[in-house]
Amino acid sequence: LHSYGDLKLRELSEIKTEISSCDVVFCSLPHGEALKILPDIKSKFVVDLGGDFRLKDKLVYEQWYGHTHSAAEELEKWTYGLSELARLEIAKSKRIANPGCYPTASILALAPLVNEKLIVGDITIAALSGTSGAGRVPSAGLHVSHVLEDVHAYKIAKHQHTPEIEQALAKIRGEDLRVSFTAHLLPMVRGIHVTCDCKAARNCNKAQLQELYHEFYKNEKFIKIVDHNPGTKEVRGSNYVHIAPFVDERLGRIVVTAVIDNLVKGAAGQAIQNANILLGLPEDTALNKLALYP
Amino acid sequence: LHSYGDLKLRELSEIKTEISSCDVVFCSLPHGEALKILPDIKSKFVVDLGGDFRLKDKLVYEQWYGHTHSAAEELEKWTYGLSELARLEIAKSKRIANPGCYPTASILALAPLVNEKLIVGDITIAALSGTSGAGRVPSAGLHVSHVLEDVHAYKIAKHQHTPEIEQALAKIRGEDLRVSFTAHLLPMVRGIHVTCDCKAARNCNKAQLQELYHEFYKNEKFIKIVDHNPGTKEVRGSNYVHIAPFVDERLGRIVVTAVIDNLVKGAAGQAIQNANILLGLPEDTALNKLALYP
Amino acid sequence: LHSYGDLKLRELSEIKTEISSCDVVFCSLPHGEALKILPDIKSKFVVDLGGDFRLKDKLVYEQWYGHTHSAAEELEKWTYGLSELARLEIAKSKRIANPGCYPTASILALAPLVNEKLIVGDITIAALSGTSGAGRVPSAGLHVSHVLEDVHAYKIAKHQHTPEIEQALAKIRGEDLRVSFTAHLLPMVRGIHVTCDCKAARNCNKAQLQELYHEFYKNEKFIKIVDHNPGTKEVRGSNYVHIAPFVDERLGRIVVTAVIDNLVKGAAGQAIQNANILLGLPEDTALNKLALYP
Amino acid sequence: LHSYGDLKLRELSEIKTEISSCDVVFCSLPHGEALKILPDIKSKFVVDLGGDFRLKDKLVYEQWYGHTHSAAEELEKWTYGLSELARLEIAKSKRIANPGCYPTASILALAPLVNEKLIVGDITIAALSGTSGAGRVPSAGLHVSHVLEDVHAYKIAKHQHTPEIEQALAKIRGEDLRVSFTAHLLPMVRGIHVTCDCKAARNCNKAQLQELYHEFYKNEKFIKIVDHNPGTKEVRGSNYVHIAPFVDERLGRIVVTAVIDNLVKGAAGQAIQNANILLGLPEDTALNKLALYP
Repeated sequence: LHSYGDLKLRELSEIKTEISSCDVVFCSLPHGEALKILPDIKSKFVVDLGGDFRLKDKLVYEQWYGHTHSAAEELEKWTYGLSELARLEIAKSKRIANPGCYPTASILALAPLVNEKLIVGDITIAALSGTSGAGRVPSAGLHVSHVLEDVHAYKIAKHQHTPEIEQALAKIRGEDLRVSFTAHLLPMVRGIHVTCDCKAARNCNKAQLQELYHEFYKNEKFIKIVDHNPGTKEVRGSNYVHIAPFVDERLGRIVVTAVIDNLVKGAAGQAIQNANILLGLPEDTALNKLALYP
Repeated sequence: LHSYGDLKLRELSEIKTEISSCDVVFCSLPHGEALKILPDIKSKFVVDLGGDFRLKDKLVYEQWYGHTHSAAEELEKWTYGLSELARLEIAKSKRIANPGCYPTASILALAPLVNEKLIVGDITIAALSGTSGAGRVPSAGLHVSHVLEDVHAYKIAKHQHTPEIEQALAKIRGEDLRVSFTAHLLPMVRGIHVTCDCKAARNCNKAQLQELYHEFYKNEKFIKIVDHNPGTKEVRGSNYVHIAPFVDERLGRIVVTAVIDNLVKGAAGQAIQNANILLGLPEDTALNKLALYP
Repeated sequence: LHSYGDLKLRELSEIKTEISSCDVVFCSLPHGEALKILPDIKSKFVVDLGGDFRLKDKLVYEQWYGHTHSAAEELEKWTYGLSELARLEIAKSKRIANPGCYPTASILALAPLVNEKLIVGDITIAALSGTSGAGRVPSAGLHVSHVLEDVHAYKIAKHQHTPEIEQALAKIRGEDLRVSFTAHLLPMVRGIHVTCDCKAARNCNKAQLQELYHEFYKNEKFIKIVDHNPGTKEVRGSNYVHIAPFVDERLGRIVVTAVIDNLVKGAAGQAIQNANILLGLPEDTALNKLALYP
Repeated sequence: LHSYGDLKLRELSEIKTEISSCDVVFCSLPHGEALKILPDIKSKFVVDLGGDFRLKDKLVYEQWYGHTHSAAEELEKWTYGLSELARLEIAKSKRIANPGCYPTASILALAPLVNEKLIVGDITIAALSGTSGAGRVPSAGLHVSHVLEDVHAYKIAKHQHTPEIEQALAKIRGEDLRVSFTAHLLPMVRGIHVTCDCKAARNCNKAQLQELYHEFYKNEKFIKIVDHNPGTKEVRGSNYVHIAPFVDERLGRIVVTAVIDNLVKGAAGQAIQNANILLGLPEDTALNKLALYP
């Protein structure tokens, strides 16, 4: 177990050797830092929780992350590890790029629609996050006196999770899809709520959508299709995803909401889920935890 | 000053007489209750803070509010009082339907775009509200143990503020516009944040949008066009509206965010602003208050 | 598993028979309700989470709870179940009165001092609680719009947990002790923090206090003596108690702070801990859970 | 108007000259910084919001603040500016040491009792504060992810506001009084709540206390004696102080709670109140603001 501080203080080569002696490595570094280390790690399995190996296209990475991708030749070794959608691929892989928190919720919310080609035109996602998604480093924007009783959007049209969502949805559909993604910082600590709004490609009603979602996720332990408006607190502290599809028949639109705990299914929980798949363990090993409510 | 309890306990006719003796009446009753009282009030000026006289079309009202509109013949006497957009009309009116909280933020955020015919297709609005918008009556959904660390959407595709927004935008444009509106309840007390996302009818950049908004609202004391991501706390306790237009050039879309205090510009503050217009007083009388920050 | 609603709707005698068929009964009813039911329950073990069987003196109960104790003859069968302080007694008992949330934190914080006769004069306890301690029933006082950004004291000099604390401390010391207890409602959901302030009977320093506390609780899995200022979030969702003793040498006073999760060690968790003792199971069965942080 | 950054970047002598040209100077610097500047300021009136000139005894200052007081010879020029208790003295002074937030609430809560010699023995104060009292500089302890759902005590037996309270109470009584003061950080932004608990010197009841407090503060616009448990939100954004005295007749103790907004009556508001007194203006000039509720 190494902290980010270690990496800055100690000889990098020494650390790489030490880490390589582990069977499974979980890496959680800021953008651009994993790039410098993971290509040299010899461990059998690596799960990277950062964004450095998620995007397949070096140019897309560089455009959204704002710096050069120095290990682009490694990208093809990595599997985008949204467990429910890439289980078989993960099982055959040695290097897993663990999805971002917003993409986890967004892609799972939209996958059944995309797979069924039920969406036409751009998808609008309003994503709401607690503050733990922004990490531990103190800053004015995370000072409690600023955050309480406040909500604001951020990185409009520029959030680096946008291409990650588009890449995953395009892979499901076999053609490009475009996402207008807006993130918002809420006065709470844990939890992500996404509201995905899109034009329906053809007529459908709520019962059909419910059936589609139930069928699509019928074998998934961590995904629950619900018939109410799911709140983030329902899944707090757990690896669960609650998804609710709605139809606006007046407008011919579909609205899907989904909630996760950004620190569990949106980060460490899914990393463990992926490690379980890599190691051939039951997928819910160490993840059998109910939400903490209230 | 009468409380809602009074109305239930006392003789309605007596109350109506008493209220009629006031010069200006502010009415803040649940949906359907103002209907039974306001048509009989003889006061010179009435400002109704509820939804009963906002929609011009009785059928639309009945569809979204779920009950009969028993005073439809009165509707033409009422002016929809979004102060900045209907100042002259308000000044000539005696009956003002004060806008809802979500519509106030949404319409002001979108008016310059609609006026300029810059929007094509449906508009998606993700609206985020503190709990004071839901009123004072205790309920499980407003119990602090449920609300803290939680966010969820509600009334998806069914929120009664949707036709109010569509009606106002259609009036500006001269043709119908459709709005996919989703409200969310946040763990905070005051404040509304709207994120309006739409397809641009033609190419534009952020500087052009900023100019358009500055020009459109150049004489408005309570509206401030900003170049950052406005947060609800910036306007808490004040009658101000902060609006930020953005362009997503990659997608050819426009995203506008806006914040108000739902209890001030979204309710009582705008009611006073309207009364000031009715009475020929300076429009900011009694409203010269800065936000309470932090 | 019966809900309180059941008790009001169904025949009481029928319910009593049904409940009596269980081996272990956990009862969580409002004050005065358990009185009417538990004396007739024939189950081997009963753990009552309410206040009806905690006080040994019927008159004290009636004074603080404000109604008659109709089953006073039962009181001697019940053991006050603060697990760490009454383990042997609990193991021999069939009826456990699970302690209140404030008393659990307060008594554990003070027990080593009282046992050592280190306190002279009245003890002042400032107790701070999240809202979940007040239960689920919606009320104005628990409406999120009132609770956020607010803190206030309540039931000053009248809180029914006061005699419970005094009874437990008197039992340890063998003579009466008096407690001035003030509870406060905080804008958070879970957690109790107590600050106990008292005059030291003789000179002591912090190192001595730390040693005394470490020794007193040396075999306790759920109690951790800490050397910082413990916060409620450190124990959220867990059965742990963090206690920090301090000395104010200038004043010759001792200040002890302690934190618990009111819904776990302060209620359901301790009930399970007690059931584990009753059943001869390892005391931490089903309670091996770390705090959810952040 | 100078910022703290200015002071570090620019020539101090130049700044001192510039500031000296103002008629009234408000100074709000960290401990130890005002010491270096204010003795050289030639302005007619200075109100210092920091702690450097509050304590009359250089040694006490050095003991609690942990550094040398380099301008001890200036101390006698300064008046401790708790407006309600030192109005005449302030009016004759040129240099005002504005009280700390905790002392403002605590001293006002206790003054009537101390003046009446109703207290015997040590006074215990449990003080609860929102985060804005800790200032704007980001730190781990003020990161929203740590603060929400948490409460903890801090600086037990070491808080520098302790001698400030003792000094003020001793001045009222004419002899020393000792205070055991514990501060707590709450998950909210504004507001201080103090619970003062002490032994009554003689029998008294609640009605007598209410009368004593009403009489003592009968001419005070900003002080309201209440008969409920006052909450911090009642005074948020205002210069008001709500005080509630209670008697615990069983124990012969008195408990007084009081609430203020730490940024108004506890800081900037009282500074303005004092400037109004200095300048011979009506004391509530610019302070006529109600609380922002909810």
